[in-house]
Amino acid sequence: MPSPVKLYDLAARDEDIRFSPYCWRVRFALAHKGLPVETVPWRFTEKAAIGFSGQGKVPVIVDDGRCVADSWKIAEYLEATYPDRPSLFNGQTGHALARFAAEWTDNVLVPTIARLILPEVHDMLHPKDQDYFKTTREAFFGCSLDDLAAGREAHLAALRQALRPLAATLEHQAYVAGEAPAYADHVVAAALQWLRVCSPHDVTSDQPALAGWFERMLNAYDGMAKAMSAAA
Amino acid sequence: MPSPVKLYDLAARDEDIRFSPYCWRVRFALAHKGLPVETVPWRFTEKAAIGFSGQGKVPVIVDDGRCVADSWKIAEYLEATYPDRPSLFNGQTGHALARFAAEWTDNVLVPTIARLILPEVHDMLHPKDQDYFKTTREAFFGCSLDDLAAGREAHLAALRQALRPLAATLEHQAYVAGEAPAYADHVVAAALQWLRVCSPHDVTSDQPALAGWFERMLNAYDGMAKAMSAAA
Repeated sequence: MPSPVKLYDLAARDEDIRFSPYCWRVRFALAHKGLPVETVPWRFTEKAAIGFSGQGKVPVIVDDGRCVADSWKIAEYLEATYPDRPSLFNGQTGHALARFAAEWTDNVLVPTIARLILPEVHDMLHPKDQDYFKTTREAFFGCSLDDLAAGREAHLAALRQALRPLAATLEHQAYVAGEAPAYADHVVAAALQWLRVCSPHDVTSDQPALAGWFERMLNAYDGMAKAMSAAA
Repeated sequence: MPSPVKLYDLAARDEDIRFSPYCWRVRFALAHKGLPVETVPWRFTEKAAIGFSGQGKVPVIVDDGRCVADSWKIAEYLEATYPDRPSLFNGQTGHALARFAAEWTDNVLVPTIARLILPEVHDMLHPKDQDYFKTTREAFFGCSLDDLAAGREAHLAALRQALRPLAATLEHQAYVAGEAPAYADHVVAAALQWLRVCSPHDVTSDQPALAGWFERMLNAYDGMAKAMSAAA
């Protein structure tokens, strides 16, 4: 058994609550590779703690002395470093199309979920992170967290709409990547895990194929994602 | 050399103008497989001509006496029937993720382009198709073609926004499917070919990676897609 990969993992006020959609990708990918993980709780304002990575965001991993930041680069690092373990991509075309799924997630799904849940995320954070979070997110979205909260119904409708390509895909196949989960599934499920951990909004129960897939992803890898409590 | 695959292909008033985003997928896929094609110009109201297919829409192919309708089913048929020719999917994960790219195209890209160009498409059609087209499209979008035309600037902005995941992907790789085009590229390029043939709107020139990829797709397969005239 290799020694654990250290993962700097975004934490809430309660340090056991982990919700980052980018860190969850790494958790899924490590589990897929069968690599043990040791997570280090990290808050947004603890830039010094990951200064060794040359940048200021998580996920950051340290594996046998090697440091890698950025979820996509971490996935590529794991695939290249552990080629004999279950593949995250299943070949060049699978790799390229997983990139498209990740870009869809980053450019559409994550911002759409963000508009819906950022007010709740703010309230979950450690107090020392809240000003930083509020300032950076309000600048990014060009409106206040209160404005976002006031538009909740519209953001929920936008999220249901944004999920259509995913839901339609899952009406034809068990996983985004086919008969078994791979990195494309990790990326999308990590975004829905963020939603699940931070807010009580339900966006899958009227879409059985999507709901069934997410339940399988929560139960995958010995129920790793399900072990994290959902928001009440 | 096998005998040509017959493709019932949507045609404009000028029967040499072919613009359907679903038929262009099939043209690309047949070219990728190196299969010769004989296209049969078809108009929306010529339901009887494809009655043998058991439904009323193109694309429909007839290959050595076998009839297949629906672009996705045609792609799967070609892959299964001609496994020794260049693959459309490159394995199970590639197949599954091409489905996601197709669902994104069908659920996001095609309707977003439609809102922008349906008025122009209407004006290109054979007069016998125009009432059918206007009635069915106005019912689908819940507004008149004139309303769509009046919202052109907003539809153009929505299309630029919708293209982001694709443009971001192509900043990292030459094709959606990686180092060479495959069916995921065919599906997306066919939608942009529809835009190119039917309307003068430019949505790629300020996104060099996207523009470069589309130019490569127009030039692929001996310039097949480029040989169709762009709208003036």
